[in-house]
Amino acid sequence: MRVDGRENKQLRPVHIETHFIKHAEGSVLITVGDTKVICTASIDDKVPPFMRGGGKGWITAEYAMLPRATEQRNVRESSKGKLSGRTMEIQRLIGRVLRSVVDLEKIGEKTIWIDCDVIQADGGTRTASITGAFVAMVLAFSKLMEQNKICELPVTDFLAATSVGIDPQNGVILDLNYVEDSQAKVDMNVVMTGSGRFVEIQGTGEEATFSRNELHELLETAELGIRQLIDVQKQVLGHLAEQIQNRSTESVEKL
Amino acid sequence: MRVDGRENKQLRPVHIETHFIKHAEGSVLITVGDTKVICTASIDDKVPPFMRGGGKGWITAEYAMLPRATEQRNVRESSKGKLSGRTMEIQRLIGRVLRSVVDLEKIGEKTIWIDCDVIQADGGTRTASITGAFVAMVLAFSKLMEQNKICELPVTDFLAATSVGIDPQNGVILDLNYVEDSQAKVDMNVVMTGSGRFVEIQGTGEEATFSRNELHELLETAELGIRQLIDVQKQVLGHLAEQIQNRSTESVEKL
Amino acid sequence: MRVDGRENKQLRPVHIETHFIKHAEGSVLITVGDTKVICTASIDDKVPPFMRGGGKGWITAEYAMLPRATEQRNVRESSKGKLSGRTMEIQRLIGRVLRSVVDLEKIGEKTIWIDCDVIQADGGTRTASITGAFVAMVLAFSKLMEQNKICELPVTDFLAATSVGIDPQNGVILDLNYVEDSQAKVDMNVVMTGSGRFVEIQGTGEEATFSRNELHELLETAELGIRQLIDVQKQVLGHLAEQIQNRSTESVEKL
Amino acid sequence: MRVDGRENKQLRPVHIETHFIKHAEGSVLITVGDTKVICTASIDDKVPPFMRGGGKGWITAEYAMLPRATEQRNVRESSKGKLSGRTMEIQRLIGRVLRSVVDLEKIGEKTIWIDCDVIQADGGTRTASITGAFVAMVLAFSKLMEQNKICELPVTDFLAATSVGIDPQNGVILDLNYVEDSQAKVDMNVVMTGSGRFVEIQGTGEEATFSRNELHELLETAELGIRQLIDVQKQVLGHLAEQIQNRSTESVEKL
Amino acid sequence: MRVDGRENKQLRPVHIETHFIKHAEGSVLITVGDTKVICTASIDDKVPPFMRGGGKGWITAEYAMLPRATEQRNVRESSKGKLSGRTMEIQRLIGRVLRSVVDLEKIGEKTIWIDCDVIQADGGTRTASITGAFVAMVLAFSKLMEQNKICELPVTDFLAATSVGIDPQNGVILDLNYVEDSQAKVDMNVVMTGSGRFVEIQGTGEEATFSRNELHELLETAELGIRQLIDVQKQVLGHLAEQIQNRSTESVEKL
Amino acid sequence: MRVDGRENKQLRPVHIETHFIKHAEGSVLITVGDTKVICTASIDDKVPPFMRGGGKGWITAEYAMLPRATEQRNVRESSKGKLSGRTMEIQRLIGRVLRSVVDLEKIGEKTIWIDCDVIQADGGTRTASITGAFVAMVLAFSKLMEQNKICELPVTDFLAATSVGIDPQNGVILDLNYVEDSQAKVDMNVVMTGSGRFVEIQGTGEEATFSRNELHELLETAELGIRQLIDVQKQVLGHLAEQIQNRSTESVEKL
Repeated sequence: MRVDGRENKQLRPVHIETHFIKHAEGSVLITVGDTKVICTASIDDKVPPFMRGGGKGWITAEYAMLPRATEQRNVRESSKGKLSGRTMEIQRLIGRVLRSVVDLEKIGEKTIWIDCDVIQADGGTRTASITGAFVAMVLAFSKLMEQNKICELPVTDFLAATSVGIDPQNGVILDLNYVEDSQAKVDMNVVMTGSGRFVEIQGTGEEATFSRNELHELLETAELGIRQLIDVQKQVLGHLAEQIQNRSTESVEKL
Repeated sequence: MRVDGRENKQLRPVHIETHFIKHAEGSVLITVGDTKVICTASIDDKVPPFMRGGGKGWITAEYAMLPRATEQRNVRESSKGKLSGRTMEIQRLIGRVLRSVVDLEKIGEKTIWIDCDVIQADGGTRTASITGAFVAMVLAFSKLMEQNKICELPVTDFLAATSVGIDPQNGVILDLNYVEDSQAKVDMNVVMTGSGRFVEIQGTGEEATFSRNELHELLETAELGIRQLIDVQKQVLGHLAEQIQNRSTESVEKL
Repeated sequence: MRVDGRENKQLRPVHIETHFIKHAEGSVLITVGDTKVICTASIDDKVPPFMRGGGKGWITAEYAMLPRATEQRNVRESSKGKLSGRTMEIQRLIGRVLRSVVDLEKIGEKTIWIDCDVIQADGGTRTASITGAFVAMVLAFSKLMEQNKICELPVTDFLAATSVGIDPQNGVILDLNYVEDSQAKVDMNVVMTGSGRFVEIQGTGEEATFSRNELHELLETAELGIRQLIDVQKQVLGHLAEQIQNRSTESVEKL
Repeated sequence: MRVDGRENKQLRPVHIETHFIKHAEGSVLITVGDTKVICTASIDDKVPPFMRGGGKGWITAEYAMLPRATEQRNVRESSKGKLSGRTMEIQRLIGRVLRSVVDLEKIGEKTIWIDCDVIQADGGTRTASITGAFVAMVLAFSKLMEQNKICELPVTDFLAATSVGIDPQNGVILDLNYVEDSQAKVDMNVVMTGSGRFVEIQGTGEEATFSRNELHELLETAELGIRQLIDVQKQVLGHLAEQIQNRSTESVEKL
Repeated sequence: MRVDGRENKQLRPVHIETHFIKHAEGSVLITVGDTKVICTASIDDKVPPFMRGGGKGWITAEYAMLPRATEQRNVRESSKGKLSGRTMEIQRLIGRVLRSVVDLEKIGEKTIWIDCDVIQADGGTRTASITGAFVAMVLAFSKLMEQNKICELPVTDFLAATSVGIDPQNGVILDLNYVEDSQAKVDMNVVMTGSGRFVEIQGTGEEATFSRNELHELLETAELGIRQLIDVQKQVLGHLAEQIQNRSTESVEKL
Repeated sequence: MRVDGRENKQLRPVHIETHFIKHAEGSVLITVGDTKVICTASIDDKVPPFMRGGGKGWITAEYAMLPRATEQRNVRESSKGKLSGRTMEIQRLIGRVLRSVVDLEKIGEKTIWIDCDVIQADGGTRTASITGAFVAMVLAFSKLMEQNKICELPVTDFLAATSVGIDPQNGVILDLNYVEDSQAKVDMNVVMTGSGRFVEIQGTGEEATFSRNELHELLETAELGIRQLIDVQKQVLGHLAEQIQNRSTESVEKL
């Protein structure tokens, strides 16, 4: 049995509270077990210099932890004066995977700023950030639609992420908490779309390798969890979810 | 009447939720109207280099806003690579006023790190931070007592803060929200103890001056608000509040 | 008696030498006891980005100490690569209080850069900076008038600052030197205008609080000192002082 | 046919010149087509603070490009004063994968610094860096053995990396050059050991997703290339390669 | 005899390999004994802000060492986040001396970026950088001529540099390697033109002074070495060397 | 005739006011025409890490300009967060040349911090800094002697610096002011000892070269000026000057 009594292939309780921050165009508080992340999506009416004049939009993400999100207080990156490599890696990941399910041509020269701020951490902060940020982003697009700035949701599919790992006792497990993460032989973050396509597969573990068979089982387990996460997204997004579903079905049929 | 329908000398609704972050020794979410700040107090078993060997403790504070705490997204200070003057000024203020009600000799060579992270801003973020941080700090000290690391609360008095200002229409008003703050002729932050002594009086306004009479009225109004804030602190602190009250009474008698 | 033999409510000798730096539009060397500060005012024909197009001017200040202005050599902030919180706090204060006595609409889209460089420090460097910077600023405006770039002095009142404190032996004292500052129970910087209005009241002390009666006495003592400082300003400004006086009287009458 | 006339599953010419820099404990110049990287391994007789006293060693990597390694001159990160997210991501990857094939307990409290400096870039600089750095690291360990500081090679398996992608015209291709990389629908870096286990699978592409079948084909193609890269490593490492091979076989048998 | 068996006034073997980096407009690998520097010249179609609109071009240089160019690994300046004083001093020197032999009016508003990256260091890296950078710069100008962007070589003379020093045993010596450099009483870098005029004479030594007679002998020895370095430049530049020679002769005749 | 009416080989008026800053162990205000520099020497009872345990002392220098020392206000390097190349070059120069006339073994493991702060600039700030810093340093050593921390002046010779240049109208000129400096074809800073030995010869000019004959005349002119500067140093140093003179004579006799 796992440290918190879960089955190997069981997610922690997941909750997404929408409209959590009143100023943001889109915002959620996502809770995955004891991991809590505030995700906001902000709309900026310009794109970065390297994209100007191209007529396309851009999505970029920033990720941070409050100093006491963790067991030990971590020093603020604003005090250190620079971002850690870990932070950079995570925020690049979040931006990249969100861009893979958005039709950037449809939003014109706008930037969507995604901010993921971890207020409490217990493993899986980057995957919770992706899952929550997707919802915040859809809400921001929905606001653009209300303002008649775009005429359809530019989102081509759902997107969510979870972690999977190989536990010394339990074998392949889903959605690792902090303790499990520290003990896992292999630890992998998987990002998938609603139609079951992979977006990123990232080993983040240390000093461990895995065979093709292990990879197969890890990916199947991840898919199981991601389907449930997307179900939660669908519930909170309501009619917006239907629009994405339709669009996604069309895309898949075209392939 | 004020923009949000309040009386001139009426606080916004105040709520302090304790134990908001599970990892921190002390933590609260303080809500003052639409202003929301997570305050945590963390204990570090050493003091900064300039205090080593002196046998005394230290209290230091850091303050930040989430990028989308505000109407317009503000750039992260970690991305800019440095703290703004405003941030520095506020975090120095928070640390300084908390130190004024703590007997640092009683805590030994420990540092209490106070973190105030504004997740939603609508005026008065620095005063809400002080009022909330005081509670988080007391909770952290209480944890040290439970662990038998200190034998009494080293807190000599309550401490809370609010803003007062002179509104072009309404005259002297209490607890300004963002809109009022932008329009005020004079804007002043006042920090007081439970026994009614001033800790700091800070004009933060721009291009405005005030007479001695105005000062008198501003301070009286501030005192009114701070008494209510301290009542809220007392409620959430329960028996810890009594210990502070006793200690404070002793101190006042000694004067 | 005080460490340097002064009466409790006696300023140290004050001297303001104008036109100290030949290149600056306005400059002074202000000497308050052993504290010496070079204050220059420079005119820049543009305003910061956030003010462009508004037709108003801006005043901003920078403050620094030479490394050996102090008893112990302090590390240059240019070597550390960042400004300390103390420096930020002081330079924001200087800019803010100067702006409170200038009619920024009258100067058009210009920035007045105030530089206060402490070459020798013995307490009260921020208040000496304000008192000296006011004179340097008036001289710079006078130069703009000579060049027919503005047609009247845009200064609405005099402005000076001093410190007051509560000394364990002597009670309330005026204009603390470094030794007194280190020993004071309470230490407060007060900035006032020529017509006796407060601009800022800042407690900068550590671990001390003060009652309403103490506040009253501190402010009265500060006013006494500031009146004398403004007398010195008037002497060195000559006919420019008269123009400010006239303007200030008009403003007060309007109130 | 591919832009440079290669078959879909053909590597570019690979060459590894050992002992390229005389001062380094281990060094190579690796050439993969027009991509050229100098990889050095340096031995430092201490570990980072967080590992002190643990008795284990550490491997860390840094990656940079000369300004004119690329078609357009890129600004030096030393001039910008900070590392880009891309650089951080790559150097964390290099360090992490090398640690997965080294028995850090065997080297004692030493740090192996890997430096990968791209002097000419034509796609695949991070995978060439990994393949070359592995050899430089083995050479450095061999030097430690010569000096009797360690008594066996602490390397548990070979390690190499390549990129695979899906080209709009050609389908799945191996070892993308810069032009192919810019046009690929999917682009993936794969790091594998000599015994065919995966270390990292990283999609780095933008705006593209892939199905399980595509993943399967991409990984098979990558394995093909990596086997050839490991053959080149074996040739240049000579008798050191045999020691690694023996050790690797033992490990596999134990599994 | 010198540590490496050379005569006192003998250069180390010098080799300049042109077109070393395929992307750069001009590039060389210069080898002086065990010192190896990659020099590239890149053309940018704009000048720095302070020169805009003047119709003249600009030449600027950057200098760096790979971490393991030296006996002990040196920390990357990109990791430290700032350039050392030594680096700044050297890159300013390289830019300044190259500008002394180029007619900047002839190149229009273009910037030539010179990058000197030391891949292996054994003394004399700044003088090797100058000697190599001159060739890379001429090659870049030649490319501009091929593209009909300029109609003649804007180079008025050859330029090369070497070091001279006073060795405790051997007296005045030419082209010091690292060991000699560490032991020299005086160490001087001399930059000269093809027509024998001085561009810079820089003592870089520590704690040593020299008489007028010693200066005379040092400069004569430097000239001897520089003539040979310019011969090597002429060989690798071929017909471009002739154009410079003609131009230089004209200039000298005009004097 | 020169712009300020001087003869070609005439210095500007030079004045050195000692004990200018009360806290520093040694300090002067040096005035050379309109150039004014505060030079202080501070004693620190430790040496930098790379020198610890060697028993020798160290001398290091920092140089800065007040923002309004110049005709146009220059941005503070503390605000920019980094030192310019020019500043680095100058402060390295000052430290290096002072070390050449001090017997570092005699002072034990102490660091002498030299701070040169230009309060008004009119050309020749680096040479004035050197000339003034020498006096401040001697005064600081004299203080160490008074405190019986060293038993003789560890200074082996006088040291001063001036600039020389070739003016388009006037030919070789001594001690260039800002206007002359901007117009000079060649501009050279020369640092010499009291016994007439060269310490540094630095061309700092742009786009100019000089022949051996010109060098000869420049150095002779510099020597003329430096002899006078050393006479001023001798006057202000009084009996300390005699001790240096005796020591210098001994050293020269030994050669």
